[in-house]
Amino acid sequence: MRLPELRVMGVDPGLTRCGLGAVEGRPGARLSLVAVGVVRTPPDADLGVRLVAIEAEIERWLDELRPDSVAVERVFAQHNTRTVMGTAQASAVAILCAARRGLPVTLHTPSEVKAAITGSGTADKKQVGTMVTRLLRLESMPKPADAADALALAICHVWRGGVQNRLAEALAKAQSARPPRGVRQ
Amino acid sequence: MRLPELRVMGVDPGLTRCGLGAVEGRPGARLSLVAVGVVRTPPDADLGVRLVAIEAEIERWLDELRPDSVAVERVFAQHNTRTVMGTAQASAVAILCAARRGLPVTLHTPSEVKAAITGSGTADKKQVGTMVTRLLRLESMPKPADAADALALAICHVWRGGVQNRLAEALAKAQSARPPRGVRQ
Repeated sequence: MRLPELRVMGVDPGLTRCGLGAVEGRPGARLSLVAVGVVRTPPDADLGVRLVAIEAEIERWLDELRPDSVAVERVFAQHNTRTVMGTAQASAVAILCAARRGLPVTLHTPSEVKAAITGSGTADKKQVGTMVTRLLRLESMPKPADAADALALAICHVWRGGVQNRLAEALAKAQSARPPRGVRQ
Repeated sequence: MRLPELRVMGVDPGLTRCGLGAVEGRPGARLSLVAVGVVRTPPDADLGVRLVAIEAEIERWLDELRPDSVAVERVFAQHNTRTVMGTAQASAVAILCAARRGLPVTLHTPSEVKAAITGSGTADKKQVGTMVTRLLRLESMPKPADAADALALAICHVWRGGVQNRLAEALAKAQSARPPRGVRQ
């Protein structure tokens, strides 16, 4: 059985630059780029104004692209203390927008994404960008890095989601093949 | 000139318990309680579902209470690493809800709030609760502590906002009293 194509929107959260990227594909098949971009908000603006601007742009993307699923980078407190609060707050806006529409939201850690895309959980930004460019057959690397990272998140999700789907399907098949308890055949 | 009464909603952000409290008052006058409560979301629920529930409850409060201003606790990365991401994400929802309506949002640090309410920036939760109870002339201390903290934030904002307003007014007065440059009187 072939899995259906999945359209996934990835969000690399940030207040100054929030990367957005959408891809379509399924595990074991070619991936295609749907859209890529970045939302920027001025560092000197009010936090509330910045969050409202990020919400408006994510809402526009969700309206236009109608993804099946949203993948957001999981933020950790121990990283980049100076910006981590803003990153957590931008991620909250992305998660909220998706969940309000009933879309499934999955968080992936940076090392999960790197490992999925490059084979190494410690790959650098350039290596991730190179693989995103190659996997989507783009003419040049998406800029800024936040945009490439959002695409990497979406690709990671298509692949990991695919594996999870196949496991779930195999399990469902195995269970349906077994006669229900107490029923003689 | 007497400052007008200000209705302030305070938010002590959290995913498991998000404290909400609204007070009315002006600096140097009696404060009054408008509402107090807490939004709880189950720790085992999806992050998206939790953020949507918090948003819905904050929206309901804003609709019903129509505050002039919202005060939210400022979250720092170095505190309570285990829960700080959730706190930052809940605070983003509160800030977003207020900013979307064009309400002014102010962040106050925990020590600013403690200093405003008790006179000491290192006061404990019980001391803050005791002062909130006394200042609002309540019969018993608001429970849980998150609800009392939300009221403390709102009180702090009425008082600090008042001081800021008076400074702004004094400045405006001094400037209007001075003849404009280049005009002879």
